[in-house]
Amino acid sequence: MENSRKTHHLYVWCLVSSVILNLFFMYKWYEDSQVSWTRRAAAEAEAAAAISCSGHGRAFLDGLILHRGQPPICECHSCYGGPDCSQFFPHCSVNANGGDPLFLEPFWVQHAASSAVVIAGWHRMSYLHADQTQISQVLESHIRKLHDTVGNAVTQGRYILFGVGSTQLLNAAVYALSPYNASSPARVVASIPFYPVYEAQTTLFRSMDFRFEGDASLWKNYSDTNTDIIEFVTSPNNPDGQLNEAVLQGRNVKAIYDRAYYWPHFTAIPAPADEEVMLFTLSKLTGHAGSRFGWAVLKDEATYQRMKSYLQLTVMGVSRETQLRALQLLKVVLQGGKDIFEFGHETMRKRWERLSKTMSMSKRFSVQKIPPQYCTFFHKVREASPAYAWVKCEREEDKDCYAVLQAGNITGRPGGLFFAGDRYVRLSLIRSQDDFDLLILKLNQLVHEEDDRQSM
Amino acid sequence: MENSRKTHHLYVWCLVSSVILNLFFMYKWYEDSQVSWTRRAAAEAEAAAAISCSGHGRAFLDGLILHRGQPPICECHSCYGGPDCSQFFPHCSVNANGGDPLFLEPFWVQHAASSAVVIAGWHRMSYLHADQTQISQVLESHIRKLHDTVGNAVTQGRYILFGVGSTQLLNAAVYALSPYNASSPARVVASIPFYPVYEAQTTLFRSMDFRFEGDASLWKNYSDTNTDIIEFVTSPNNPDGQLNEAVLQGRNVKAIYDRAYYWPHFTAIPAPADEEVMLFTLSKLTGHAGSRFGWAVLKDEATYQRMKSYLQLTVMGVSRETQLRALQLLKVVLQGGKDIFEFGHETMRKRWERLSKTMSMSKRFSVQKIPPQYCTFFHKVREASPAYAWVKCEREEDKDCYAVLQAGNITGRPGGLFFAGDRYVRLSLIRSQDDFDLLILKLNQLVHEEDDRQSM
Repeated sequence: MENSRKTHHLYVWCLVSSVILNLFFMYKWYEDSQVSWTRRAAAEAEAAAAISCSGHGRAFLDGLILHRGQPPICECHSCYGGPDCSQFFPHCSVNANGGDPLFLEPFWVQHAASSAVVIAGWHRMSYLHADQTQISQVLESHIRKLHDTVGNAVTQGRYILFGVGSTQLLNAAVYALSPYNASSPARVVASIPFYPVYEAQTTLFRSMDFRFEGDASLWKNYSDTNTDIIEFVTSPNNPDGQLNEAVLQGRNVKAIYDRAYYWPHFTAIPAPADEEVMLFTLSKLTGHAGSRFGWAVLKDEATYQRMKSYLQLTVMGVSRETQLRALQLLKVVLQGGKDIFEFGHETMRKRWERLSKTMSMSKRFSVQKIPPQYCTFFHKVREASPAYAWVKCEREEDKDCYAVLQAGNITGRPGGLFFAGDRYVRLSLIRSQDDFDLLILKLNQLVHEEDDRQSM
Repeated sequence: MENSRKTHHLYVWCLVSSVILNLFFMYKWYEDSQVSWTRRAAAEAEAAAAISCSGHGRAFLDGLILHRGQPPICECHSCYGGPDCSQFFPHCSVNANGGDPLFLEPFWVQHAASSAVVIAGWHRMSYLHADQTQISQVLESHIRKLHDTVGNAVTQGRYILFGVGSTQLLNAAVYALSPYNASSPARVVASIPFYPVYEAQTTLFRSMDFRFEGDASLWKNYSDTNTDIIEFVTSPNNPDGQLNEAVLQGRNVKAIYDRAYYWPHFTAIPAPADEEVMLFTLSKLTGHAGSRFGWAVLKDEATYQRMKSYLQLTVMGVSRETQLRALQLLKVVLQGGKDIFEFGHETMRKRWERLSKTMSMSKRFSVQKIPPQYCTFFHKVREASPAYAWVKCEREEDKDCYAVLQAGNITGRPGGLFFAGDRYVRLSLIRSQDDFDLLILKLNQLVHEEDDRQSM
């Protein structure tokens, strides 16, 4: 009888536990089944993300598929190959050419959950938002908030416009600042070394209202004549990372400040920028170069209106998918406090340190000097962490520095493109860790060869 | 004893059932928890989609939020308002102006699961795809397949390029077809009535290489001189839906075929288009105007290369988010066979029928005639289903047709913008069902007023 009662109690206990467990699992299942129409897309994205490319590449949702029903293929970093990117090609040339900001990719992998975005089939099909603009107000306010937080630009009382990358805004600004139907076109200039797109794009349009003229300093004597001048100022500068200021002043001089790199990843922030025309891009802030999203911060209403009509007539605004995604990325940036900038700065500082160490052992090559500077964002004096190394070949015979590096299996970007002559080469430091590690490896080899030559 | 055994069996039975249930729920939970980092995004998208806007509006993921923690607000169709769009403003002006292709929105709501897309935080951050282009090969091959399926364009052996909407491709094509540094600029022309952006955009650039000259027919005598001529041909035409062909022929004449509306929604497809330069847009195919995605189908390699460098230098390619989403939308279109075209054609045909019925009772207004035509896609003769009504005010005194309709609370687009004179107005038939229903309501009122006047 006693035994039977014990058994009875045991049964009841087991049953109650099991029922409780049932309720728990039911609840969990219910909780998860709150998502319904998004499930297919979610599973597909997670499956693509789970494909292993050995840490040397990545598979994307819209990647090539070799056979029906198979997953997308791995797209490998330079010098890696094979179906899972596990093969290393030690004698291949490392890509230090492109400005792909992949150094931030690991940050987004770490923030997978907060940065993902689901786009419904019916998301914003219209040309216009409800307020009859082509701009997401919510995104605009996040951009203002971000500038306030970082302290890198004054946005209060300023107009903000979106463009298809800051690339598109370059010409939109040139267009807006050029006189209409003047007797002579505006002269577009920049300080050497400068970003080649200024010239290529300005020239492409063959406009009656503006013309590219190259070196800004040659126009110092014209700045108080009637000639209209538009000066591109890149600050920090691409390629050399210097915090440039306008070279020209005067009644008819207008400046376009390209502030693409004015983020704590790449430079100290001495004070908020407050120029008439400032251009920014998502590409060098979050690393999403492929999204083609940039914005202009403008003081003058007439300039704003002219740029707006340019953007309206050329592309009818920036893709709504892009605006939605940019919003989600900026939410993550803002929620994280200093996170992304600490990540970005640490990564770039360490890379610069390693590069500087290699370069310091060389007499053949030199790189730009960037002094430590007080940063109002980090509240401290900080070391340089530029996006690019601006390398000079010092030997008399090394007239073609690009070829010298290429012979050492390093593909840089020739200084000639930046109007600085062939003794210079730009090396990109913002690419993937693989590319950077390989760059240092090849550079070290080149520098060691110097020693060998000296000791011969 | 017998009782005790029965109780015992009952317990065992209950326990086993419960454990089986446990296993079932565990498995279900496990199955659902296969999605992990996408969950937050999925839940957020579903929550936004679940917001009721009374069928007269929609809430979007990136919509305005009035107070922290609250869901995004409803964005209402024209003439509807209130927090849930349930208020109707009967005396408001209906929007028949814009070309927002919202008639396809219900199709995408019906295909919620298949059309959703998840964008991971690290999705395609690079400027370039693995093949060093800015174009998704997979998307390109889907576009070719779609043209083959619909039979509306020859793509075999043709080059394909992506642009920020076909809007951007208009000027890219003008640029590519213009002579460089010729003694006189190319003359850009079109047949009246034509889409106003051709003029506005060509004029905007104030290029030394091309100039807008208006009416194509005025240039018939020049087509064999040395003057370069570029003719925009819109087929079906915006605003009047006619299957236009080039007016000019000759050695120095080049045509840009704007094929935006050459889909079974809007027209019979008599044969695959096979012109030198053809432009298409997602906007009028799937209805995603906000995505800013268009493509060019090109025969000539030199034209392709020039357009490609234009796109590279002005925007560095189309947003990768947009390309990913466009791919998913085209997958749904292709998997559905004739689905989207049957939906689109049925919707537009019914609308045209209702509009024609109203117009047939009017002596004050007339609309364009489009003859029934054999369609190789539907394998039958089909009635007209144009995107726009091209309305003419027939009364002597109704010189300003736009004002006449505006007085009846209908906002159209003035014929003057299409270079056709103020007796014409374009009414958009491709907007939301609300907008269309309201348009018919207001048109009927206007037509009834005619009767009242006649009977006076």
